[in-house]
Amino acid sequence: MPLRRIKLVIEYDGSCFHGWQIQNNANTVQEEIERAVYKITGEQTRVTGSGRTDAGVHAYGQVAHFDTNSNIPPVKFSDALNSALPSGIAIILSEEVSEDFHARFSATKKTYKYKILNRKARSPIMEKRAWHIKGMLNVDSMNEAARNFIGYHDFTAFCSSGHNITSFERNIYISQWTVDNEHLVYTVSGDGFLYNMVRIMTGTMVEVGMNKRAADSIFELFEKKDRNLSGITAPAHGLYLVEVNYEQDTRN
Amino acid sequence: MPLRRIKLVIEYDGSCFHGWQIQNNANTVQEEIERAVYKITGEQTRVTGSGRTDAGVHAYGQVAHFDTNSNIPPVKFSDALNSALPSGIAIILSEEVSEDFHARFSATKKTYKYKILNRKARSPIMEKRAWHIKGMLNVDSMNEAARNFIGYHDFTAFCSSGHNITSFERNIYISQWTVDNEHLVYTVSGDGFLYNMVRIMTGTMVEVGMNKRAADSIFELFEKKDRNLSGITAPAHGLYLVEVNYEQDTRN
Repeated sequence: MPLRRIKLVIEYDGSCFHGWQIQNNANTVQEEIERAVYKITGEQTRVTGSGRTDAGVHAYGQVAHFDTNSNIPPVKFSDALNSALPSGIAIILSEEVSEDFHARFSATKKTYKYKILNRKARSPIMEKRAWHIKGMLNVDSMNEAARNFIGYHDFTAFCSSGHNITSFERNIYISQWTVDNEHLVYTVSGDGFLYNMVRIMTGTMVEVGMNKRAADSIFELFEKKDRNLSGITAPAHGLYLVEVNYEQDTRN
Repeated sequence: MPLRRIKLVIEYDGSCFHGWQIQNNANTVQEEIERAVYKITGEQTRVTGSGRTDAGVHAYGQVAHFDTNSNIPPVKFSDALNSALPSGIAIILSEEVSEDFHARFSATKKTYKYKILNRKARSPIMEKRAWHIKGMLNVDSMNEAARNFIGYHDFTAFCSSGHNITSFERNIYISQWTVDNEHLVYTVSGDGFLYNMVRIMTGTMVEVGMNKRAADSIFELFEKKDRNLSGITAPAHGLYLVEVNYEQDTRN
């Protein structure tokens, strides 16, 4: 068979793994998928994700690609890999893409959700699935802050250090909180995200919701570009990578 | 302190326990709560639930009561017990009730939800939280069947045997499916439920959704009173006890 590039859409429970990226002495999503590809094809291949997710972060729709000489039909890879993967990871979709498709570099849009459980008692059912905040949050103020993120801004103040990044400017398309009883869900969509960006944005908006900071202080943070002035990094276990979009990424 | 009766509203992740009721050599919710009461009060007391839930069944709002001579203020029991309970169980609310309140016999209404994930790929995030059904279900037919359950009927055909029951008649107030993308959620509310009743009702409606049985076959099942004619028992891990209601149950 000629070499073919396969695109995967992947769901995982972040609480089961030490994040996406392969590392020594730790169980990661990338490693598990590479191991499953080896099991079903006998090929040792690199599985490249759209980006890393930290330990604890969940995904409904992480995207990755890999190359294979296997004669397994592209759409059948999902079933085949699922039978070889641990229960914490599932391939939702597999399809052939053109050889110039790249899960990371071809991505044009990413969407995340951040879930907060806002009530007094902790929740066994949402334990590793949402950030539990006991004090009542003002969601109207949080939505006012959320709207201020929309557009093209410098997100230096919303990026953890320690990574080689040349540009801190990102374009945010959607940024809003929805409420379902005691569940607050933040949806954010943009052309790209810096390291810990959604978690720092969320932590900053939570401080707005606690009346510790004004909703329009976001504009000051864009200007000052100082991580020390923005809010805390919200915990990993409330974050979900929901979708990664591409332009004309598939042959189908 | 005089003896006081305390009512608890309890959430638990059913996948962590062998059901509600105490049994030998198995970890149960009732046992864990009695142990926690002992830890914080030094009293060995019986915690009586509104009813059993089987292994795997979850609860957002199980209700139980117990009697105590402790001087812990009734509303403070929730925090105190939560610090002594494993992460799979949380007390959402605690309050004093009159001595004739009984979690089981005073209950006037119960509400359950049953969650189905209807898509091809399994879901790591919903793994022990929903019944995964791959084949596309016809939710309109399922809702037609669901409406047929509403009212006062004989549910003999929807009850697992092996329990001493004198009356099989129950009154169902709410019975409907809602759809959120690939998630189907059944909500059912009634004056009481027989053993495995919601799970057999769900299994029967799923057979309707698979076009294996007609929506109006429900009426025949009421008449024939034969468990062998109804559908399969849906798996425990999709079922949630959502709420138990009482009339004038609290002093507050």
